[in-house]
Amino acid sequence: MNAINLQQKLKKFSDHWHPRQIAGIDDMQVLLAKVKGEFVWHKHEKEDELFQVVKGTLFIQFRDRTEEVKQGEIIVVPKGVEHCPMTKDGEEVHIMLFEKLSVKHTGEVTDEKTRTTYPKI
Amino acid sequence: MNAINLQQKLKKFSDHWHPRQIAGIDDMQVLLAKVKGEFVWHKHEKEDELFQVVKGTLFIQFRDRTEEVKQGEIIVVPKGVEHCPMTKDGEEVHIMLFEKLSVKHTGEVTDEKTRTTYPKI
Repeated sequence: MNAINLQQKLKKFSDHWHPRQIAGIDDMQVLLAKVKGEFVWHKHEKEDELFQVVKGTLFIQFRDRTEEVKQGEIIVVPKGVEHCPMTKDGEEVHIMLFEKLSVKHTGEVTDEKTRTTYPKI
Repeated sequence: MNAINLQQKLKKFSDHWHPRQIAGIDDMQVLLAKVKGEFVWHKHEKEDELFQVVKGTLFIQFRDRTEEVKQGEIIVVPKGVEHCPMTKDGEEVHIMLFEKLSVKHTGEVTDEKTRTTYPKI
């Protein structure tokens, strides 16, 4: 029951597209990630996914359009919807994710970016 | 699937201790609230509760101590733990809450601050 400082947690890792777990709420978890460039097209069949941008600007590509999510904004990607997060101009973007403990970050896809564990930090 | 800007949402209401719903993720919800002064001692028997401070400094009183949660920090209050949020020196604090749709914000207590609905904004 201590306050969790996102900036302090973000100092603990530097790799991209590998979420770290910083808290749990019921059957959901809070993850932090640093991202840069383009991720992988995927979907989560059973879980919604919330992104909050902590630093920078995230672009979430959907099949028909791209949504810009600025620092301090949130977006929910509903279950079943294909998406592919990316950043532009080589920017490193910091994001917080809220989602079920069961979520795999690359969804139904296995890719070189797939990580099977989200270390607690 | 649009970005949600917290600052724009916060402009839509001004009353204290009355959360507004801005998003849903599976069986959980994201709420925004403006708070000032002291809330009500309560607990949630079945639900954890996550607070994120968007502006100002929130103090969460537990029975044995008080935790300070600064802007940009988060804290999870586990189910069953009595707590009473407050602000100091008349500061209006803006918070985002992440919790089950089933949560009642005053928990097992009914008080003059109790609101039975969280309007969507």
